[in-house]
Amino acid sequence: MSTPNIHGIIGYTITPFSTDGQGLDLDALGRSIDRLIDSGVHAIAPLGSTGEGAYLSDAEWDQVSEFSIARVAGRVPTVVSVSDLTTAKAVRRARFAQAKGADVVMVLPASYWKLSEAEILAHYQAIGASIDLPIMLYNNPATSGIDMSVELILRIFNGVDNVTMVKESTGDIQRMHKLQLLGEGQVPFYNGCNPLALEAFAAGAKGWCTAAPNLIPQLNLDLYAAVLANDLSQARALFYRQLPLLDFILKGGLPATIKAGLRTLGLEVGDPRLPVFPLDEARNQQLQTMLKQLL
Amino acid sequence: MSTPNIHGIIGYTITPFSTDGQGLDLDALGRSIDRLIDSGVHAIAPLGSTGEGAYLSDAEWDQVSEFSIARVAGRVPTVVSVSDLTTAKAVRRARFAQAKGADVVMVLPASYWKLSEAEILAHYQAIGASIDLPIMLYNNPATSGIDMSVELILRIFNGVDNVTMVKESTGDIQRMHKLQLLGEGQVPFYNGCNPLALEAFAAGAKGWCTAAPNLIPQLNLDLYAAVLANDLSQARALFYRQLPLLDFILKGGLPATIKAGLRTLGLEVGDPRLPVFPLDEARNQQLQTMLKQLL
Amino acid sequence: MSTPNIHGIIGYTITPFSTDGQGLDLDALGRSIDRLIDSGVHAIAPLGSTGEGAYLSDAEWDQVSEFSIARVAGRVPTVVSVSDLTTAKAVRRARFAQAKGADVVMVLPASYWKLSEAEILAHYQAIGASIDLPIMLYNNPATSGIDMSVELILRIFNGVDNVTMVKESTGDIQRMHKLQLLGEGQVPFYNGCNPLALEAFAAGAKGWCTAAPNLIPQLNLDLYAAVLANDLSQARALFYRQLPLLDFILKGGLPATIKAGLRTLGLEVGDPRLPVFPLDEARNQQLQTMLKQLL
Amino acid sequence: MSTPNIHGIIGYTITPFSTDGQGLDLDALGRSIDRLIDSGVHAIAPLGSTGEGAYLSDAEWDQVSEFSIARVAGRVPTVVSVSDLTTAKAVRRARFAQAKGADVVMVLPASYWKLSEAEILAHYQAIGASIDLPIMLYNNPATSGIDMSVELILRIFNGVDNVTMVKESTGDIQRMHKLQLLGEGQVPFYNGCNPLALEAFAAGAKGWCTAAPNLIPQLNLDLYAAVLANDLSQARALFYRQLPLLDFILKGGLPATIKAGLRTLGLEVGDPRLPVFPLDEARNQQLQTMLKQLL
Repeated sequence: MSTPNIHGIIGYTITPFSTDGQGLDLDALGRSIDRLIDSGVHAIAPLGSTGEGAYLSDAEWDQVSEFSIARVAGRVPTVVSVSDLTTAKAVRRARFAQAKGADVVMVLPASYWKLSEAEILAHYQAIGASIDLPIMLYNNPATSGIDMSVELILRIFNGVDNVTMVKESTGDIQRMHKLQLLGEGQVPFYNGCNPLALEAFAAGAKGWCTAAPNLIPQLNLDLYAAVLANDLSQARALFYRQLPLLDFILKGGLPATIKAGLRTLGLEVGDPRLPVFPLDEARNQQLQTMLKQLL
Repeated sequence: MSTPNIHGIIGYTITPFSTDGQGLDLDALGRSIDRLIDSGVHAIAPLGSTGEGAYLSDAEWDQVSEFSIARVAGRVPTVVSVSDLTTAKAVRRARFAQAKGADVVMVLPASYWKLSEAEILAHYQAIGASIDLPIMLYNNPATSGIDMSVELILRIFNGVDNVTMVKESTGDIQRMHKLQLLGEGQVPFYNGCNPLALEAFAAGAKGWCTAAPNLIPQLNLDLYAAVLANDLSQARALFYRQLPLLDFILKGGLPATIKAGLRTLGLEVGDPRLPVFPLDEARNQQLQTMLKQLL
Repeated sequence: MSTPNIHGIIGYTITPFSTDGQGLDLDALGRSIDRLIDSGVHAIAPLGSTGEGAYLSDAEWDQVSEFSIARVAGRVPTVVSVSDLTTAKAVRRARFAQAKGADVVMVLPASYWKLSEAEILAHYQAIGASIDLPIMLYNNPATSGIDMSVELILRIFNGVDNVTMVKESTGDIQRMHKLQLLGEGQVPFYNGCNPLALEAFAAGAKGWCTAAPNLIPQLNLDLYAAVLANDLSQARALFYRQLPLLDFILKGGLPATIKAGLRTLGLEVGDPRLPVFPLDEARNQQLQTMLKQLL
Repeated sequence: MSTPNIHGIIGYTITPFSTDGQGLDLDALGRSIDRLIDSGVHAIAPLGSTGEGAYLSDAEWDQVSEFSIARVAGRVPTVVSVSDLTTAKAVRRARFAQAKGADVVMVLPASYWKLSEAEILAHYQAIGASIDLPIMLYNNPATSGIDMSVELILRIFNGVDNVTMVKESTGDIQRMHKLQLLGEGQVPFYNGCNPLALEAFAAGAKGWCTAAPNLIPQLNLDLYAAVLANDLSQARALFYRQLPLLDFILKGGLPATIKAGLRTLGLEVGDPRLPVFPLDEARNQQLQTMLKQLL
């Protein structure tokens, strides 16, 4: 099993659509990937929330997955989100991503129903058994409807060989403390909640999974560098500088704000798919003002 | 626009799978529909939560939808759940259901993201404009992740011509009171929360959308009859008699418990799709004991 | 141990203050008690939330308690709330109430800290052992900060001899169902949540503890009478007629709205104690309009 | 108005009771205060949650307040919690504390009822107008039942001259971020949630209000020193070292665990007042083991 060192700034990609929202714009996708890599991010994560993975048909999902991995072309590791509503479908996606060259797959226990702990564990076991890649377990009750306790996460981490990383997005920093204590410092954890970027690093997070580097990569990278340099004052100052934008992205919705921001920065990637609205004019102005101040 | 009188006991259907969980078992589906109609339910609702609608491929969804409508064959009205993650996909399902002869479509604003009120309204408007059928708006934050306030529900009810019914499943009876008061008694509302069956009827609900008639149709129908007869004591007694089973269904999960119950009653309909587990042995025993006492 | 039959409409009294909020106005208190009894309520409950019991000094509490019991003078049973922050203080109040002739004491596990189940049980045991009166256990997490599960309530009911009644004010009707089922119909329960008046009676509540009869006693009594007459339609109509006022009382705060309403009806009882504000002018107008329509 | 520089480790005192829980043990209180000051804490905070302030009679409260201020004797600033249920009583306590020489008073909007924003603001205004001391506004919904938004806190901070500090205990680190951003870096904030000690300092908190220095003062002080030295790695290591004890204190309840710990360390301070239980034997053992490892 390949074991890439996933750390630092892990940049989420958007999925560009053609003007009518129907087709994919792979050309724009390629350019958005290149921008992220050129800016210095340490890994690329296609098809997450930002990538509107849940809103793609299976055929589109396959296309975006294959294209993204090929475009990254090993310049940095690729972490592909393969979550799906049934175990069978998630397994299919995981295998597909592996076949196309992904380095890591990320799995959120997305479900229509609340799942029992045994059901969640079996879900991870089935996916784990179907591939040879490391899996980043992803906890995000706000989108999945399922909140995995730290105890359950550790059961899965210890019980499924290729679950080797944990991404925590509850917004509760104490979950990371508990992962660190109960996991005896042996569980690499990653932050998925933008407004906790500083605190997660303070708590020992190995990386930050974020869509923000589509817009402000240098500030994201500088924050990580300040942490590596053990310079808390500098990290705090950098964090507060970018926090208003991080909050704005969260409140405005990831696809809507990142797509609007990329348009402002000169890369047309279309709008999110309905029912999600593109950013309205007032917020577009706000975003442009914020970006002007930060860039 | 046809305006069927939807009232009383609206029975949800399960979706039977073949033994390996891969294929559909339409023959069993047909028999389960006949059982419901023969037992006396006032309407049939395919492809809801109980029907594992979210776990079907698009092709399977179409098959189940078309087959169910044809099998009901107008004996009672058919209320088809057409919810999907994007507006375009929900519109496609709504049109398909109309083309195949559905009487009503039910729409839950399912979404990966939390939607704004404007986004939810636009979603209903787009679906409403695409068909000539009445729409039952469905509020169920536990599965959709979105909780529509009574005020928003009324805005949609008043702003989209063919939204003519409201199904409330928050489990908070005060929502129905508010619908009744703010809607000035003009908004037909339906209960989707089994343990509130008595209170919802007391509050004036026009019907009860439930999977329970797959197992205990007579008790469900008798409760409705007692309410129509203005016999509160009788309604209360009937409610408490069936409540342990209603609670059990809710806790065990709709597809798992209803499928296990049908098996017990002699109709093999397979298991739910993974990650959802079938009922375990202990609970199977419990269910059999309960059914024996009630039937 | 005397065992009065507590049922029907249990009316809460306010505590009138003199104009500057400093002193008690016992004369007005006496008249407010007479009004309630004359209107036909089935029991009187002094020193509850409505009575600002938490905002009185110990000396004032004793005065109001003694005076209220004497004024009721056995015309109906008196249910005195004796909750206090420490067990010692609650015991003192319970004994005082018994000495002065109370028929029942009501106990909410008020606490600064979240208490464990063992601590709550011991609290009830200590109070129970200190008096010979029946105790109405009171669950209201919104004011006490402590939510007792139905299982805990039954442990206390079964473990403390003189805990013989349960008042439920969580606003979750399913708690009453569970009390009825797990208590095998042997636990008399009372509703303390005004907007659930209809549903609680539908679920089998024996009484309704409410401040509303200070303002609209006949509507409250008629609702109970309709339930006793097994006339669900009539009960529903009466409930919806008074619901806007019940909601208004809840949102405006019990002492503020009841005191304003009594003033409107001709009985001056002063204002609530700060930090609680009296009703503002706009809401006062609203209240007067509502009362005019209902009386 | 005196303006002491409140920063660093602000140590809460317990309130020792005599063996039967009835009387105060002022001698033990004096020794516990000396221990804290000798250990190096930067301020002393009597009569907070840890001090069981809510469980004292008015006479006891006055005694503890006067004695504590006198015993501190200006060696460090004294921050006295003067919260009470009515505005009149809180004003009385604030004046009393000022008369006896307190440097700062702390005010939690404790209330039986949920208060409106106008009521909370008026409460702070009344207290502010009654004294010449700086006020530390304290937000802790878990004990007060009232959660003040950052916007409300800033309205009070800007509208009441002597509210000059904010203590935040929601456990949500994003509140501190918002205070820092919306307050434009001009609002000194303090952390009252032990498990957030590291993150609060990372976010820029000026101090940590905590009962922990009764047991592990050096670790608390070292964490603060590491932050002042801008040494994030060291701060993180020190935080994780003391976190299990901080969690233990929180879960076991402040008065019960701190009193048990002091007993272990040789200072007998009695038990908490009922209904709060002293630590049970198993947890006592656990606490002793933890302390042995840390001291």
